[in-house]
Amino acid sequence: MTEHSDPMDRFYSIIPAGGIGSRLWPLSRADAPKFLHDLAGSGSTLLRGTWDRLAPLSGPDRIMVVTGRAHRAAVEGQLPDLADHNVVLESEPKDSTAAIGLAAAILVRREPNVIIGSFAADHVINDQYGFRRAVSQAVAAADAGYIAAIGITPTEPAIGFGYIRCHGSLAIDAAPDAIIADEFVEKPDLETATEYLADGNYLWNGGMFISRADVLLEQLGKAEPELLAEITELAAAWDTPERGAAVDRIWPGLKKIAIDYTVAEPAAASGRLAVIPGRFDWDDVGDFAAIAKLHSGGRPSDLAILGENARVLADASSGVVISQTGRLISLIGVTDIVVVDTPDALLVTTSANAQRVKAVVDALKLSGSSDVL
Amino acid sequence: MTEHSDPMDRFYSIIPAGGIGSRLWPLSRADAPKFLHDLAGSGSTLLRGTWDRLAPLSGPDRIMVVTGRAHRAAVEGQLPDLADHNVVLESEPKDSTAAIGLAAAILVRREPNVIIGSFAADHVINDQYGFRRAVSQAVAAADAGYIAAIGITPTEPAIGFGYIRCHGSLAIDAAPDAIIADEFVEKPDLETATEYLADGNYLWNGGMFISRADVLLEQLGKAEPELLAEITELAAAWDTPERGAAVDRIWPGLKKIAIDYTVAEPAAASGRLAVIPGRFDWDDVGDFAAIAKLHSGGRPSDLAILGENARVLADASSGVVISQTGRLISLIGVTDIVVVDTPDALLVTTSANAQRVKAVVDALKLSGSSDVL
Repeated sequence: MTEHSDPMDRFYSIIPAGGIGSRLWPLSRADAPKFLHDLAGSGSTLLRGTWDRLAPLSGPDRIMVVTGRAHRAAVEGQLPDLADHNVVLESEPKDSTAAIGLAAAILVRREPNVIIGSFAADHVINDQYGFRRAVSQAVAAADAGYIAAIGITPTEPAIGFGYIRCHGSLAIDAAPDAIIADEFVEKPDLETATEYLADGNYLWNGGMFISRADVLLEQLGKAEPELLAEITELAAAWDTPERGAAVDRIWPGLKKIAIDYTVAEPAAASGRLAVIPGRFDWDDVGDFAAIAKLHSGGRPSDLAILGENARVLADASSGVVISQTGRLISLIGVTDIVVVDTPDALLVTTSANAQRVKAVVDALKLSGSSDVL
Repeated sequence: MTEHSDPMDRFYSIIPAGGIGSRLWPLSRADAPKFLHDLAGSGSTLLRGTWDRLAPLSGPDRIMVVTGRAHRAAVEGQLPDLADHNVVLESEPKDSTAAIGLAAAILVRREPNVIIGSFAADHVINDQYGFRRAVSQAVAAADAGYIAAIGITPTEPAIGFGYIRCHGSLAIDAAPDAIIADEFVEKPDLETATEYLADGNYLWNGGMFISRADVLLEQLGKAEPELLAEITELAAAWDTPERGAAVDRIWPGLKKIAIDYTVAEPAAASGRLAVIPGRFDWDDVGDFAAIAKLHSGGRPSDLAILGENARVLADASSGVVISQTGRLISLIGVTDIVVVDTPDALLVTTSANAQRVKAVVDALKLSGSSDVL
């Protein structure tokens, strides 16, 4: 299947910019999702950071963004170079299989031998060189017919990430680091995560998948033939005047399911999933503990302060303060604290409880407090 | 010196309503001092609660309030029965000797044998019967020529209160519980407070002093003759058209000093201070730990919520939340926490750090953030 041209020339980036990031409420919410925030303190939103990481790899003309209609203006504001034909708008969220599958189906019609890579809009990676090196090898593995994932070498027994179990190397010339995956595992408990770290054969699932578009769709069709048929029908109408009608007819009925289940896991089970171990820093900034860690430089005694107009007076306190108001925030003797101050909602918790924020959001939904979600 | 009439007929209450309550920032502040808040959750401000406690003792016509000019409207709003001739306005705060001394000097001119009692505007007492019984005995001791203080029987080794060391009983018929004080001691450390509690001869200084007005002024004059002369001059002008001019001339130069130093301690040192042990509940609500305790009914696992429009969603959290905004406040896994949410300032601390709030207020003053004080 290998083409003789450089496979990077056929590479197209896809950024699904969908999730709200419930664990980051009340900072992240329906009208201000996680990817529109500067959580890394870099001066850029996470979405913009993702774009800046991908543009040198695929070129700015070859980055497709899949996002909700409500976020179109914000996304285009962040990404002025985003071409109209690279914007895929969802009328309602349908999880990652529909988002990435539709993008793949649209692109494969335009360019049959396209190699696509999907990259979450809301992750943080600082080592651009390491990232590009891994993507480059993943593209080579994709060119060889594999579905390639980028795994992250664990630095601690994290319980907030999924893991990929790997074994043995693959003999791909242009992807010397590629290894073969045999299983995806969900977020483990601490004991299991500690075993994974000691074992050495487990990598974090970085949520980055690279493959030929046709290979991805073929794999998807094995697990979800109906969903593939609907996506294919929608893609056929996409670049025609029928797009709107097709979206209205097809999109609302699409099955909500993550691509991990429809593509990555089945591919791993059948020996078609290659993993490139990424030796770069990576964080999915999944909760406030992750934000505190990103900003403290690993020093747990530090207090990280986010917010352009933050006014904070802290005494003997550590953790993270995120201020979206001009209010004075005073902390006294609170350690490992998380304070998120927004105009209509305030969260006070600790890093250790950061994963429980989602449960609060669920409770707010049930209790009729969706005005603050 | 004892008169033959019931000395309660000569009793006049004085409420100095001055202090801001810096340890309760950002709830309590210059334009909304502690005494104007309902910290007991009774539905009344502390000032109103004080009035309601005293009115049955002295009658509503015999309660004088000394407060700042800026608080006149708020005070009169809280106390509609407060007579004009019972309002003493301070042009600037001059601590308790000037406030109580001036009230005493005004009253003694109107009624030479008046017995006065001064009662802080911002304390909480629920046991009205026990309170009245103690005041009644204190008035009897005052009638016998003593300066009487009401001491509170300690229930724990509190470090936020001053103590009065007592010994031996006084043979006053109408004040059978009266004992003699020999020393006032400032807020102790925990070790010392524990010794005091074990010793049994130490009572909390409830800040309630009852005496003949002439006796109080005589005692004051021994410690601060100049201050007494100024107060006396001001009082002489008070009920005349010269009041305004006298206030402008004299008030700004008055020495700032607490009555503990000018009257109570010297009286104790010279054997003239009687103490009535109060067997009622009492709290000066000096910090947020006190508020948490008042509202938890002593159950440390409880979360107390103050604020008419409070919207709080708490999970595995305890302590106190005070909301002055309509914002949703979510707490997750924070115990013994203090959250005070006001429109322009937010405080997050713990009960254990409650006494440190004043230091933050001092830091805010120094750092030019007095807009939130």
